[in-house]
Order: sequence, then C-alpha cells, then structure tokens
Amino acid sequence: MAEPVGVAVVGASGYAARELIQILLKHPSAKVTVATSRQDERLDALHPSLARRTDLTCEPFDADRVAEKAKFAFLALPHTASMAIVPSLRERGVRVIDLSADYRLTDAQVYEDWYGHAHTDADGLKSAVYGLPELFRSRIPSASLIANPGCYTSASILGLAPLVKENLVERNSIVIDAKSGVSGGGRSPKLSLHYPECNESVSAYSVGRHRHAPEIDQVLSTAAGGGDPVEVIFTPHLIPMDRGIFSTIYARPLGAAVEHDLIELYRSFYADSPFVRVVTHLPGTKDSAYTNFCDITVRVVRGRILVLSCLDNLIKGASGVAVQNFNLMIGAPETTALF
Amino acid sequence: MAEPVGVAVVGASGYAARELIQILLKHPSAKVTVATSRQDERLDALHPSLARRTDLTCEPFDADRVAEKAKFAFLALPHTASMAIVPSLRERGVRVIDLSADYRLTDAQVYEDWYGHAHTDADGLKSAVYGLPELFRSRIPSASLIANPGCYTSASILGLAPLVKENLVERNSIVIDAKSGVSGGGRSPKLSLHYPECNESVSAYSVGRHRHAPEIDQVLSTAAGGGDPVEVIFTPHLIPMDRGIFSTIYARPLGAAVEHDLIELYRSFYADSPFVRVVTHLPGTKDSAYTNFCDITVRVVRGRILVLSCLDNLIKGASGVAVQNFNLMIGAPETTALF
Amino acid sequence: MAEPVGVAVVGASGYAARELIQILLKHPSAKVTVATSRQDERLDALHPSLARRTDLTCEPFDADRVAEKAKFAFLALPHTASMAIVPSLRERGVRVIDLSADYRLTDAQVYEDWYGHAHTDADGLKSAVYGLPELFRSRIPSASLIANPGCYTSASILGLAPLVKENLVERNSIVIDAKSGVSGGGRSPKLSLHYPECNESVSAYSVGRHRHAPEIDQVLSTAAGGGDPVEVIFTPHLIPMDRGIFSTIYARPLGAAVEHDLIELYRSFYADSPFVRVVTHLPGTKDSAYTNFCDITVRVVRGRILVLSCLDNLIKGASGVAVQNFNLMIGAPETTALF
Amino acid sequence: MAEPVGVAVVGASGYAARELIQILLKHPSAKVTVATSRQDERLDALHPSLARRTDLTCEPFDADRVAEKAKFAFLALPHTASMAIVPSLRERGVRVIDLSADYRLTDAQVYEDWYGHAHTDADGLKSAVYGLPELFRSRIPSASLIANPGCYTSASILGLAPLVKENLVERNSIVIDAKSGVSGGGRSPKLSLHYPECNESVSAYSVGRHRHAPEIDQVLSTAAGGGDPVEVIFTPHLIPMDRGIFSTIYARPLGAAVEHDLIELYRSFYADSPFVRVVTHLPGTKDSAYTNFCDITVRVVRGRILVLSCLDNLIKGASGVAVQNFNLMIGAPETTALF
Repeated sequence: MAEPVGVAVVGASGYAARELIQILLKHPSAKVTVATSRQDERLDALHPSLARRTDLTCEPFDADRVAEKAKFAFLALPHTASMAIVPSLRERGVRVIDLSADYRLTDAQVYEDWYGHAHTDADGLKSAVYGLPELFRSRIPSASLIANPGCYTSASILGLAPLVKENLVERNSIVIDAKSGVSGGGRSPKLSLHYPECNESVSAYSVGRHRHAPEIDQVLSTAAGGGDPVEVIFTPHLIPMDRGIFSTIYARPLGAAVEHDLIELYRSFYADSPFVRVVTHLPGTKDSAYTNFCDITVRVVRGRILVLSCLDNLIKGASGVAVQNFNLMIGAPETTALF
Repeated sequence: MAEPVGVAVVGASGYAARELIQILLKHPSAKVTVATSRQDERLDALHPSLARRTDLTCEPFDADRVAEKAKFAFLALPHTASMAIVPSLRERGVRVIDLSADYRLTDAQVYEDWYGHAHTDADGLKSAVYGLPELFRSRIPSASLIANPGCYTSASILGLAPLVKENLVERNSIVIDAKSGVSGGGRSPKLSLHYPECNESVSAYSVGRHRHAPEIDQVLSTAAGGGDPVEVIFTPHLIPMDRGIFSTIYARPLGAAVEHDLIELYRSFYADSPFVRVVTHLPGTKDSAYTNFCDITVRVVRGRILVLSCLDNLIKGASGVAVQNFNLMIGAPETTALF
Repeated sequence: MAEPVGVAVVGASGYAARELIQILLKHPSAKVTVATSRQDERLDALHPSLARRTDLTCEPFDADRVAEKAKFAFLALPHTASMAIVPSLRERGVRVIDLSADYRLTDAQVYEDWYGHAHTDADGLKSAVYGLPELFRSRIPSASLIANPGCYTSASILGLAPLVKENLVERNSIVIDAKSGVSGGGRSPKLSLHYPECNESVSAYSVGRHRHAPEIDQVLSTAAGGGDPVEVIFTPHLIPMDRGIFSTIYARPLGAAVEHDLIELYRSFYADSPFVRVVTHLPGTKDSAYTNFCDITVRVVRGRILVLSCLDNLIKGASGVAVQNFNLMIGAPETTALF
Repeated sequence: MAEPVGVAVVGASGYAARELIQILLKHPSAKVTVATSRQDERLDALHPSLARRTDLTCEPFDADRVAEKAKFAFLALPHTASMAIVPSLRERGVRVIDLSADYRLTDAQVYEDWYGHAHTDADGLKSAVYGLPELFRSRIPSASLIANPGCYTSASILGLAPLVKENLVERNSIVIDAKSGVSGGGRSPKLSLHYPECNESVSAYSVGRHRHAPEIDQVLSTAAGGGDPVEVIFTPHLIPMDRGIFSTIYARPLGAAVEHDLIELYRSFYADSPFVRVVTHLPGTKDSAYTNFCDITVRVVRGRILVLSCLDNLIKGASGVAVQNFNLMIGAPETTALF
C-alpha cells in the first residue's frame, strides 16, 4: 500500500474538526500531520474523546508549515477566516477542502449580501468546486479547492435534486422545514445553546434569513440546468438533540405525482451514490446518526410532494462529505474510512 | 365562597388526566370526588407526583356512582371508550368534558373514515360543543357536552383562525409542519416511544393520515363561515422532549401580506383571550411549557405567510383547555386555577 | 383579605428568580413591586415565559427604592453580591431572604476558605437564620435575614437529619453521591453547560471541593446537637436534564438498621413538614419536579443505610423554600402558593 | 490476507447485537454469515441504521445451520436462553462468545439465587472463561466459551481491580454508585423506559438486588487472589441518555492514599491494555461514547479513595469487548475493528 498522504486540519477545536479527525485517524491513505488552533494545546486536551488516539499538539496556522507537512488541508474555520488563508495554501500547492461557507456562493455579491463581508478571493471563488459528490462527482477529482456544502444544504439539495433536475415541481413552491440538533450551532457557548435554554424546547430561528437558503437556491438552480431559478422558503428549527438534520420538504408537482414512481426516480438517481439511502419507511435522524448516510423517502399527500431527508450534520453534513471529497481527489474508493 | 362542585375524572391513569387532576386540586370551585381507572389503585400509586396531594383511590367506572358524586365528568379515555359512556352520564344529568376525539368531528361518516369505527352516539354528536374557547366562547357556558380539542389541532387552529376568518389566504395552500413532544403519544409503552428509540432523533409519523387533519379542516372551514373548505397538509413530527407542540404554518396570502399588520390583526383577534400571547419574538415551546398559554407570532417570508404557534400539549392542548371550558360552564373567571 | 405585602426580587435574570416570580405571582399575600437587574429590560423580555403575567420592568438596584416599595426582598444574586447590599436593606427595615451562599456558613473564616473572599457583614452573619423550615421552623417567623439553603444541601440535609439527630450513624462514614440537572449551574453560558457538551453525558465535577460540602457538615453538626462533627464525602454529578437533584446517601449505622423502623422514624420526623414526602417506593426526580416537595426513602443494603432524596433544585432547592420561609415570616400557612 | 472467518449473531434484534453487527461489518477478518431472531425479517428492517450495509435476513436459530456457516457464534440472548443452546453449539465445534449472564457466575447456586433458575449447563460453566481481557487476557485465546462481562460489571471491575489486586482497600468498604443510560435496559418497551417516564428524571433501581453485584464480588475476589471476599454495595441509577455508564466508586484505603501514586499505579496496571485510558481530568461518559474505551481517574477525598470509571455500555460494556475477545481468539490485534 502506498504511503499515506499528509493532511492538515486547520481549525481543530470545533465539533466538525473533531469528527473529521476521528475519521481521518481510521483512513488508510491519510495521516494527520498538522492540526492548528489558536489554543496551543494537545488535540486530546481540546477533545478528550481523542485521548490515546493521537499525540498531536495544535499549533498556530502557518502556511509554510502546512505546505511542508501536508498535501491536503481541511479548513474547519469560521467564514472569512477561510478565504484569508486559502490563497496562501493554494500558492504552495496544497489542495484545500474548505468546510466554511466562503467558497460556496459563486457570486461575490450574493456572498457579501448574506455574510456581510466583501469576498477577498475572486480567484479562489472561480476555481472552487462545490463538493457535493452526489451532484458534482466528476468535477471533484481534479479540484484544487473544494467548497464543502453546508449541513442544511446537503439534506435539502439531496432531497430535492431529482425533482428539480427532472423538472417535476413548481420552482417557487418549495418549502423546506428543517430541524437540526444543537451541534449545528457550533461549540462556542451562547445563551440560546445553553443547556437549560434549548433542552426540552423547539424553536425556529433565522426565519427568512438563514444563510443556507441562497446556497440551496443556487445549487438547485444550477442542477436544474436553466429555466426559472429555484427560490425556496427555508425555515430552520433547533431540536433538543446532539446531532442530526431532518428536512421536511413540500413542493407542488407540475403534473400528477405518483409515490411509487417518485421512489423509483430517486432510486435510479442515486443508484451510484453509496451514501444516499432511498427508503420506503419513514426515517428518523437516529438511523443515520454517526454515519455518512443521507436517508430519503418521498410521499404524496393531497397532491403535494413531500420529501423527508435526514443526515448527521457533523458527518454527512460536514466531516464525512469532506472525506468523501478527499477520497475522490486521491482516487480512493469513495467510501474509504466512511463505513 | 360557594361549595366547590364535585367533579369526576374518568380514565385517570394517563398523562392528561394527571395534569388535569393537578390543576383541579388547585381549583377553588372544584373538588375531585371520583377517579376511575381499570387499575384499582390509589391515584398516587398511578402517579407518584400526586403523593400527599390526594387520598383518592381509583374505582371502576359506574355511571350511577359518578352521577351521585359529581356534576361534571372529565373523560380522559381513548376514542370509542368515551362515546360508550357519554350517553349514560348525560342521562343522569352529568355535564361532560370529553378529552377524547369522539365528539370532535361533527360528521359521523368522517369519524368512521378516520377512526375506523361507526359512531354510536348521534345524539351526543349533535349537541356537542367544540371546546376551543378562543373561537366558540359564547357556546360553551350552556353546553352539556364539550368536545375538547386535540393538541395539534389547538395549536394549528389558533395559529390559522385569524387568517382564515379574515379570508386572507388560499385555503388549499396551507402546510402545517408540526412538532410534538413524546407525551403526546400517551402513556402506553410501545417501541416507537421507547426511550432509546426516540431520544436523540426526529422523525415524521402518520404522514398524510393523522387524525387531527380532518379536525383542523372542519373547524377552520366552520370558522371561515362559508366558501371553499379549508384543506391543510398536516405533517406531525416526534421530538425528543417531554411536552410541547410547535406548529410551523405556511400559507399563500390572497393579497399582499405585511408582517406588522398581521401581528396587529392577531393581537386584536385575541384581545379577549387571556391564554393566547401574540408575541413579536420567535417563541420556543419552553416558554409555554407547564402553562395554559399558546404563543403565536407571524412572519412574511418571500411573500409567504409563516405562523409559529406553540403550546403545552398536555395543558393548553388537553387538561388546561378542559378546565378553561369548565370555568366557562360554571361561570367562573376563565383563568381560574390556570395561572 | 389583607392588602398583599410588597416584595422585591433583587437579581431577576436567573432561573431561580424566574421560578420565584412565578410563585409570587400566584401568592395571595404578596405583590412583586420591584425587580432589579443590570439588564434594564422588561421582566418578560428576560423571561419570555412571563409574558402577559407581569408588566414589571427591571431597574438597577437601589436600596431606598426597594425600601419604599417593599417590606421583603428576595436576593437571587451571586455570592459576595448579596452581602454587599444586605446591610443597606436591613438598615431600612427590609426583611431579607437571601438565596445566595453569603449567610449560610456561620463562621466567616470557613466562608473565606471556601469562597475565596473575606466576609464583610459580620453583623448579618450573626443574625441570619438558616432557612430550612423542616429543621429550624421556630426560628424563622421572627428572622430579619434568612440564609436560604443550597439545593444540594437541602436534599442532603433532609435525607440525613433524622439519622444524625437520632445518632444512628457513624458521622464520618457518610457518602453523598449527588446528581443534579443542569439548571443548577446557573444561566450564564459556559462550555461545560453548552448543550452539545453536557447532553447525553454524565460527569462528576468539583470532586472533593464543592462549596455545599461545608454547609452540609455545619448544618448536620448543628442538628446533631453536639458530639463529633459530621464530615461528609460529597460528590456532585451533572445530569442531562433541566432540573432535579437526586442524592444517594450511604452511611454506616452505629447499631442494627431495620428498614421498616427507619421509614417510621422518617415519617414521624417529618410528620409536621408538609413538603417532605417519606415514600416506600424508589422515587425519581420527576415525581417532585416543578413542585416544592422533597421525596425521601430509606433502604438497608448489606448492613449499610441508603437514603434516596429528591427535589427540584429550582423550587424546593431555591425559590420554593424561599416562599416557604416568607410564608412563615408573614404568618401565612406554610404551603401558601406552593401547591 | 486470509479468508474472513464466518461468524453468527444469535439474537440479532437488540441494541448490543446491532452494535456488534456494525463492528463486525468493519472487521477485516470476520464475515457475518448468519443472524438469528424470532422475527423473520431482514436485518435492516429490524435495525434501519443497517440499511445498505447488509443484505442478511434473520432466520430462526438452528445449531446445524450455524455450525455449517460459522466458526464463532456471538449470543445476544436473554439469560437462560443462552445456556439452552450453548451445548449444541459447542458440540458442533462452534466457539461461543456469550453476551448474556449465563456463564458469568462460576457457582451454579449463586446463579440460581440471583437469576431464579437452575443452571442447566454445568459443563459449560466449568470451561467458560470470563471475557474481560484486561484481567484475563492470557486465558482467552484458547477459550471455547467466553462469558462476556456485564456493562456495569466492566466499569466497576476495571475501576477497582488495581486497588483490590494490590490490596490497598478495605474489601467490605466499597460503594459503587453507578449511573447508566437507558439502552442498558434493553429494547423491549416497558413503562419505566417509556420516554415520558424516564426522560428528565434520575432514579435508582434494583437497590441492593441488582444481578451485577454478585458478578463484581466474584471477579474482584478472584482478582484479589485470596483473603477476604470483596463485598460491594452496588446502586444502579437510570439516567436520561442513550448510552454510557458512569461508576463513582468509594473505598477506604488500608493505608495512606496519595492521588498521584494511585494514578501511576493505574497507568502501570493498564499499560498493556489499549482500551483503558487512565486520565487525570474528570471524564464524562460522552468522551468514551461510541467507542470501546474505558476512561478512569482516581481522587482522594478526606482520606477516601474515589475512582471514576466510564464506558459505553453497548460497546465496551457489551459488543466491543466481545469483539476484543474475538480478536484474541483468532490471534488478530486486540484493537482490530475497534478504533
């Protein structure tokens, strides 16, 4: 077997980074050689679950150092922090898988509108490939910069892509009622994610202004391949559980909708995608928790199409799909280290 | 102060009954004189939280006995069990507040279609008043039989009534994405409500066939006062928490929708309803948990109206509204024992 | 009925204050006239659950203002903040119920050892009465300053008092293994109470150095009325639930221990205490959640005495016992507003 | 690489079996060839999380069929069901790893006392090896029948073994206060594990009569290698979380106890055990959840030794240690498929 390739995890203190490291530690073709963090600590001090699994100590980010030790860098940084360092890594020949939102929106103006910052890396934006293998598998192997999709986004897009690509639904009729576990909110303490506030409660947040909405619109409009743009109503909810996203999607069909045919369409659409499970039962987020699977089913209710789509926000919605992209980039089987 | 009136709780072993008893124990004008259950046990053996609050022992149901001891009977029975005994209670002059579904649907055929049993009490069906005080307050004081509304139903109807009564939305455009805590599933153990199955998971259930859908359709169509019937898409979800319902409601407006005006409409609509709180922030179910309040807010997103409506399924969705009805029936202030 | 007495809630933004206000809003003999907080907001903006229940706006603390509007002040402040203002209130004739730890330890040196601050109110310390009615009921009515007990403390002391007062156990053999819901950690966000950190996990904290240990030692030694001091091993654990304390207490008996006799002893000991329920079943914290009850049972296992003691940390462990003390101070029935 | 060995999972419908299958599906040297269950269904119908991971269909147990397809059988059956089939498997040369309690207690009379059934396989009892590799590693490779330890048992024994083997504590002074997630109670619905009953609550159960107590006594007494028997006070508690065991262990030292020395003792004791992590911080169950690790730390409080020991009850407490045993039996690295 070939020597494992050196990989860096930049921004190692959060939840997605922890999951990513856990997967990479099992990966036969990767070796985590650098982990960076503003906290100058052993990785297993930041993440006690990594005790006895790694001896790495976090270091401050340094592009030269990363380039020296790693051929790939996974960035688990807040938005704007990614685009501040991506050029320096690419200049040094490091291939980047960016888990932040910085390279997901192809239009710098849309980015600025939703994220409140001007985009500073037009070049990167142009060459970035949207890293959702189920839709863009062929473009990933040669990419030098991957924009890893958002968690809500993946659940929504995977749930809608067959309908939109086949032009089966009214593109302005789509409602996505999404429910997420609390780890989706990140690891920084704040009142809304303080245990006694969000435990035993459901609430909606960012109604009408969540940043994953334009991402869903853009990717589905692209997938549709022309015609009217897709414009979704997207409502995220906070659910008292650690992880998992459940998207309940409602759309008006353009013609008659038959449940069985839709299930067959989905099966065929995802036949070559090992991580999408088209099921006939009603899935729960628990079925795909701690895995890289996305579970999808379809129903027709009173003439409306309902799609239910579940995944683990930290894995299929972040670290797992990142490794899926990495596998495609190194020519390894897509499922390596992900079962 | 007048002598408290004797009340019976028929079917005392479930969660709604327990909550009901807790409220009634604080009620200055009510005294629980009978509790029935197939389990021949002390009430506080069935419900340890009632220890030192009551000395009642459950007895098998007997209409004569209930009539002798109580002027009011609250029925917390499964559907079909209620209609089997309601006539015997009404014959004996006992006024009934039925928490089951047996008298909610006014059309016996619709009942049979959804519940799978023929309705056996046409007479009761005719005289029953739907016990949602916010919509039908004037009819409740003189009622001899109250059909206490369902939990999902109340959250949905209270969220939609102003829009429907004012004819502001397309009646076939309404999507209700509802989330409920697990106590809504009752107290009988089953796999889907077994802790390790539903904890840390979200799932949808009864998609397209939940029995609260026809109830919502019927009551809103009535509230609309003519015109096309209301036909909602209703999707219930199971949420890992004890109690609380969160309804996210989507509707297409018939004209332009302005958030501020809608909030004012709701405020005015519920001005005389002490238990509906029209708020401007995004509510969580926790705000109304363990209370008889329903919290509602309205948003306009991409031209669509969103209503968020929360309540405690066991209180405002069952036992609390039952006492609200009782208060109206005895001429007490509507809020008695409910703050 | 007499005019309700004006009461102030000083430090209104936390969980115990919220619960306290909810109880006081139901109290026939109390009226909350002042609420203070550094956050200059409506009470129901701080606590959305209070919407439509109160119109109070928080104000900065001012002793004159409190004295003008209130005869009683409940202090829900962090330690050291209480003793900074208690003298000013007492000078103005306001009777104080202090929910902080500042007046619980009678020895200023012990306070300094455990809290890391010199005590600045020797006078208050001398006159403070420890507000655990079950042990010190007779001293409370005339008190001008109540040191409201800690949550862990109450569960532990109520569980042990009969054994210690009757001198039935080795005083240095006592192990208290305590489990608490997360609200016990307060409302300030921090990593250890961030939802994805503490959910789905049990951990011990402050092992061997929790500040409730010296409080338990002191009160039980006092209750013992002489002889060797009580020295407990106290281990608190964080449990993924909102509220509730479960204390599992282990002690070596001095003579033979008989379960039935111990239950009888406890029943007799607490015969006049309406909020202690001595039960024979194994209680869960849920039975007493949202109530002012403390549930206790006793077992003998392999010659060791086990006491299981449960209460709601925010009510019987804080706000409820505060109102119990208030009731005794105004001569109202001890249970007023607490059922 | 050698051909994977065929293994059977007998009793495939429970949680431990599901976890076991998930591990075995990743195992390079094992292939699950048979799964048995009274439910004649596809494995992924019983366990939706296994969708697209296996095509196996459960079949009724048949010893010949198992022997034909598998060299190893993992039994995930209730007690008494295991001993009913173990002889038939051993006769046919199948090596057995029994996850039930049937072969853990070496004395048939003790088994009968605690489990209420006569033991019917004296032969098996005699040859069974207690499958806790950290204590009995050398005996496992050649075993034909492994008694896989209980979940509480492993956490307790691993926490106490160094103290007991080194004779550092009074053997009748040991208190084990154990907390378990709900999956420890199995997958059969019952009221005590019904979500709204056990969520948001802590309770103790089986106080003084839990069947893991004699197992702990026996194994620790054996480990002590003579002298007085170990007699522990063991109290299990139910915690509202899916998985994880936290054992808080209290013991009186025979001499002076020094925290640092004890940590060193534990480190040295477990130096060759890859799945025991002796840590200096206070661990939470979450750190070892979904892993085969057991995290242990030691404290000295007021002259008493406290050991905190955590593990995942379904993995290190059941399926993971089973595979650890399997690895030793086939001569594979002990950690195979377990990281």
